[in-house]
Amino acid sequence: MTTARALHLVSRPEGLPKDSDFEMREAAPVELQDGQIRIAVKYLSIDPAMRVWMTEAKSYWPPVALGEVMRSAGIGEVIESKNEKFEVGSWASGMTGARSELVSEGKGMQRFDASKLPHPGWALSIFGATGLTAYFGLTDIGHPKAGEVLVVSAAAGAVGSAVVQMGKALGLRVIGVAGGADKCAFVKDILGADEAIDYKNENISAALRRHCPDGIDVYFDNVGGEILDAVLKRLKLKARIVLCGGISQYNATGEIRGPANYLSLISARGRMEGFVVLDYLHRAEEAMAAMTPWVKAGKLSSKLDIVEGLENFPEAMRRLYAGANFGKQLVKL
Amino acid sequence: MTTARALHLVSRPEGLPKDSDFEMREAAPVELQDGQIRIAVKYLSIDPAMRVWMTEAKSYWPPVALGEVMRSAGIGEVIESKNEKFEVGSWASGMTGARSELVSEGKGMQRFDASKLPHPGWALSIFGATGLTAYFGLTDIGHPKAGEVLVVSAAAGAVGSAVVQMGKALGLRVIGVAGGADKCAFVKDILGADEAIDYKNENISAALRRHCPDGIDVYFDNVGGEILDAVLKRLKLKARIVLCGGISQYNATGEIRGPANYLSLISARGRMEGFVVLDYLHRAEEAMAAMTPWVKAGKLSSKLDIVEGLENFPEAMRRLYAGANFGKQLVKL
Repeated sequence: MTTARALHLVSRPEGLPKDSDFEMREAAPVELQDGQIRIAVKYLSIDPAMRVWMTEAKSYWPPVALGEVMRSAGIGEVIESKNEKFEVGSWASGMTGARSELVSEGKGMQRFDASKLPHPGWALSIFGATGLTAYFGLTDIGHPKAGEVLVVSAAAGAVGSAVVQMGKALGLRVIGVAGGADKCAFVKDILGADEAIDYKNENISAALRRHCPDGIDVYFDNVGGEILDAVLKRLKLKARIVLCGGISQYNATGEIRGPANYLSLISARGRMEGFVVLDYLHRAEEAMAAMTPWVKAGKLSSKLDIVEGLENFPEAMRRLYAGANFGKQLVKL
Repeated sequence: MTTARALHLVSRPEGLPKDSDFEMREAAPVELQDGQIRIAVKYLSIDPAMRVWMTEAKSYWPPVALGEVMRSAGIGEVIESKNEKFEVGSWASGMTGARSELVSEGKGMQRFDASKLPHPGWALSIFGATGLTAYFGLTDIGHPKAGEVLVVSAAAGAVGSAVVQMGKALGLRVIGVAGGADKCAFVKDILGADEAIDYKNENISAALRRHCPDGIDVYFDNVGGEILDAVLKRLKLKARIVLCGGISQYNATGEIRGPANYLSLISARGRMEGFVVLDYLHRAEEAMAAMTPWVKAGKLSSKLDIVEGLENFPEAMRRLYAGANFGKQLVKL
């Protein structure tokens, strides 16, 4: 038995999470009971919602209590098993928490065949919650129709890049918003967006006016803030705003910036609707059935941004919140 | 032929409309052409959206141009007719504009039988755009189900008071928000709301917590601002926010206050949707069929707040925007 390590949340961050908001603790070795498995965690998923879980705010999950291991999705290899559903050597994914080793009854853990994926990390991106978020947010909340105009923020991020590709696969005109020339080139040249807007160097409103002269049908919003406000000014009739997240506001220490142009929803007869991927887990097969052919046809791929070492988990979070990541942010253990 | 007067918009108001933003002008007498009618305007409707029409903002109608007669719905009696569809003595309603006399081809004017109404002004309230706004906003956008919790802002206002009564008629638990003890008593005792919240003298969040312990299913929003933000914190799963207006923000001279708690739509899987009554004019009969039995059963009534004199039109607008009106704000000529 190895000595397991885990990252505990010890204070609620103000603004960006600091290293000192966490504490690395060694866990006493545990012997497996019947029905249990031991998973060596290989990759952890860094997700925008983590910043919400670290606050005391009521959300779809309770806050991470101070002293608890930080909540995180992860994947790993089964290294010891007293549960016949999980053999040693198999891979599993689930809410492992930010720890090197997980002892589990197997509940909530899904087996997957890592050898069938371009990289095991895809189980945390396209074929994980990220992919389901993109797929059901776009289709079930956004109701896109071929030929419509789709704008996606954080278009080089994990969910955003999946949405851009899915939008193209569904026959939409897609405009991605991302920060910096490299990301914009990625969004246009690799992901296949029709246009990309560099929010760090362009006037968003002017760029939207240029690229969406007739307005926007669907906006997939991962960020909130200024981009949401600019989109609200250019809604087409019966536009749908898919509220997936508001990462630009998650680390705000002052007041949250609400969308000042929300009244445009009236003249546009538009709709802004939130969703949570948990509600769609039971429909995962439906998403897989749609996504697998896209992956095989090269229409849907996943870029991973990998930081090494559990101790760099807070740094990986800061990368995400600063928009420094390029693709799905993972931590490799 | 009498000398007609009309109120022209001569400057775009900053903040509340001032008398000096308008100019009363006499119109040269016009002889009727074949097909035309002359209507002596009797009542004008003062509506929240007027403040939007007075700006240069793109909306569902173009701005009122400077120098034009102020746009307004109105009703009046036909006093001269060269159009067989409108006989002298009959009543008509439509977009008359803020004028004492209208010469019209009759297009866009609806005849109505004033003798069948408790007051002719009802043609501008329950049986006018106000009633259609309340009915279709509540049913078509709000999708209320009997037993659900409905919160209505500006509940003593024209649309709000209709929504409160319709909500009760549909079997909902209804909480009305209004300003001042008199209006709250009206909302509860006359309109029949289960509870009323006095936003001028109560903490809205605390009151909503008390009156909606399990959350809010439908919010019919006429005001925006602080009340919208308080409601957002208490949404039930799959809640619907009906965006009818944002009167608290229409006269803002600084930045509009967007709903800072809009991200609650994510955890609640909620929806905020705008609508415009114009889209429902072709379904007016459907609303009338639902409302008429309510009116006959005493479940739906309309309080009118009448200011006398065309010259007091700007004052009537200020009453509305200050929340000083009590029921549907009309100007009697």
